[in-house]
Amino acid sequence: MNMILDELTQKGKLAKAASYSLGILTTQEKNHALTAMATALRESYDYLLEENAKDLALARETGMASGLMDRLTLTRERIDAMAEGIEQIVSLPDPVGETILDTTRPNGLNIKQVRVPLGVIGIIYEARPNVTADAAGLCIKAGNAVILRGGKEAASSNRAIVKVMQDAGTSAGLPEGSINLVENTSRESATALMKLNDYLDVIIPRGGAGLIRAVIENATVPAIETGTGNCHIYVDKDADLSMAKEIVINAKTQRTSVCNAAEKMLVHQSIAPTFLPEILDALCEKQVEIIGDARVCTMYPAATPAVEEDWGTEYLDLKIGVKIVDSLEDAISHINRYNSGHSESIITKNEAAASRFLKEIDAAAVYHNASTRFTDGFEFGFGAEIGISTQKIHARGPMGLTALTSTKYQVFGSGQIRG
Amino acid sequence: MNMILDELTQKGKLAKAASYSLGILTTQEKNHALTAMATALRESYDYLLEENAKDLALARETGMASGLMDRLTLTRERIDAMAEGIEQIVSLPDPVGETILDTTRPNGLNIKQVRVPLGVIGIIYEARPNVTADAAGLCIKAGNAVILRGGKEAASSNRAIVKVMQDAGTSAGLPEGSINLVENTSRESATALMKLNDYLDVIIPRGGAGLIRAVIENATVPAIETGTGNCHIYVDKDADLSMAKEIVINAKTQRTSVCNAAEKMLVHQSIAPTFLPEILDALCEKQVEIIGDARVCTMYPAATPAVEEDWGTEYLDLKIGVKIVDSLEDAISHINRYNSGHSESIITKNEAAASRFLKEIDAAAVYHNASTRFTDGFEFGFGAEIGISTQKIHARGPMGLTALTSTKYQVFGSGQIRG
Repeated sequence: MNMILDELTQKGKLAKAASYSLGILTTQEKNHALTAMATALRESYDYLLEENAKDLALARETGMASGLMDRLTLTRERIDAMAEGIEQIVSLPDPVGETILDTTRPNGLNIKQVRVPLGVIGIIYEARPNVTADAAGLCIKAGNAVILRGGKEAASSNRAIVKVMQDAGTSAGLPEGSINLVENTSRESATALMKLNDYLDVIIPRGGAGLIRAVIENATVPAIETGTGNCHIYVDKDADLSMAKEIVINAKTQRTSVCNAAEKMLVHQSIAPTFLPEILDALCEKQVEIIGDARVCTMYPAATPAVEEDWGTEYLDLKIGVKIVDSLEDAISHINRYNSGHSESIITKNEAAASRFLKEIDAAAVYHNASTRFTDGFEFGFGAEIGISTQKIHARGPMGLTALTSTKYQVFGSGQIRG
Repeated sequence: MNMILDELTQKGKLAKAASYSLGILTTQEKNHALTAMATALRESYDYLLEENAKDLALARETGMASGLMDRLTLTRERIDAMAEGIEQIVSLPDPVGETILDTTRPNGLNIKQVRVPLGVIGIIYEARPNVTADAAGLCIKAGNAVILRGGKEAASSNRAIVKVMQDAGTSAGLPEGSINLVENTSRESATALMKLNDYLDVIIPRGGAGLIRAVIENATVPAIETGTGNCHIYVDKDADLSMAKEIVINAKTQRTSVCNAAEKMLVHQSIAPTFLPEILDALCEKQVEIIGDARVCTMYPAATPAVEEDWGTEYLDLKIGVKIVDSLEDAISHINRYNSGHSESIITKNEAAASRFLKEIDAAAVYHNASTRFTDGFEFGFGAEIGISTQKIHARGPMGLTALTSTKYQVFGSGQIRG
């Protein structure tokens, strides 16, 4: 544990020192460094693939599942994609320095609220090396130093990516310690990073429900809860049923492993007899397992009976929980009880029902007549995101560069004292 | 512990249910209820004073210090002040419902980001009954339900204030469960409230350093760190020395028990020989104890030698830490190392030095030629505040009504699915 703390303290000090210099760089200086990083990644195919091969060899030895193996694998194309991701970040507007408020008080004090970097950001993630480049790029663009703690399965790949990016950044004028990787990848190092209050301003988990829960339970550093999506689509009595069918199929099956995929469908009882057989047949054709409440199972015997736990579960799989509700109110109260605050959609031609749903549902994104799959930084037009916040403080929904900043009051006086 | 959890779960459910109704009230409806609460407080002098007398009797028995006793005491004037505080909140603009962003994407999706209440707010505080009225008023105005956990010393007073406010609010149309008080005032109830993730959206401590540390260390609910102020005034080599003297005296002595009072003075070495004797004599005259670094003690033998711990300590007392620095850079790096992120001031006629200080100092409020005592919701023109945030996520500096809100994306489609 002492070795872990030694490493974290040393990297924390480096990152903190770097953050003061990073915070006052111009947009041009940051973009210059990011562009150099993208170029350096492209010029380092051989080194990166060699280091990645070490991780892959270990993964094969330990019998890693093929899906995870795929996420861990780097190729020339994937390295190009990382570099392009950083170039896209270069093209995003820099939020730092924006004046949000400018007011002069009766006593003559001029008060400006300006946007500043957060300082030092901790990111804890799993075995996806692309997150390393992506998260570092976003943090740097917003003027922050970053301490990355990736999964042990990607340790060699992450070390190589950080080395390439930090070296290129330093040559292009970034301070040493702008991008730091925690070498110790034990569970203890993750927990210790969550408690590194002296050096971290915020910690952001990127990964599965277990990781996020661990951060919520252990972090003493301010944390941002991201990613879990138990998303619902409510098909109202006044829905356009062919639109509803298309949207449900899209939200459930277009990509099942993502947080904005639909996990539940609620159907108004008055349309259930006509709509349910059709949509459930269509879902079955797409290999989706139907988990139904009692009424659904009666109407559609191929459904598996749901248990209480189903309603709160994010399947991330070809499975959907289906429930018949008696009214819009029942739909709203079911969703507010079981959702994870991510994305919820109502399908209806009734404007009053839609308006009520959009107002009363408690979630980061609420949709009328659209698929939940759009909750995403690019789809919202914000560009790359560091994650999708499902908590309510600081940022909610897709977190772009602005979510990686804070503000500061600058107060200009001429000798004012308080009476 | 089970009884505590039972109470918290019951109040959490009530508050959560209330929050859905509160969130969709109009400004007029909320103002009507708040006005009724203010009136009800004024009509309840006898009841409130009677209940307060029970707390005071217990406090006398346990030998409470006179300062705390004073803060605990209600009078007609103080009840009037609580009522006026709520009326001031009525007059503040309602942040809820504001459209922050409105954009239409190439696929036709219209995305609106709107301001919504946080939901359920937990407030943990000490033996100041006025915080009960103040915090409840601010939370309700921003459309939130609140769970209050005040100090045991004020239990009867708090119960009475909450009863008067909730009853008046309910009669005026607020849902039951809008304002909840935790009856159990053990340390365990505070800790359990900090972990009530199923029902609380945020927890805010209002009180001393010990309480704030306990929240940071124990909370699994998103927390906002408030209040600690180890504030510095740096007197630059180019300072107007008579202005510097006035500002230091004001920031240190005008009120010592508040978080925006100055705790440290840094003096540039080139002006120390002329400025120090004068300012230190003036501080001594005001009964301020001088804690000096080695150079200060040599120059001013009446000073007490500082130890390392002094530089990070918020005295909240007639004490000031004084240090001679060799340069602006030294001042900035000392402050960034030891400050608590609250309020820092530079006194100088040199614009370049001021600009650098305001840019590089990491704090919620940075001042040029003014007293740190202005960091306050009213002084900034925001009206009443729930606290002063010294963390960087969500809100920084004085937290007005907007800091008690979140946002939500409302997305309007016409059948869009993701390709």
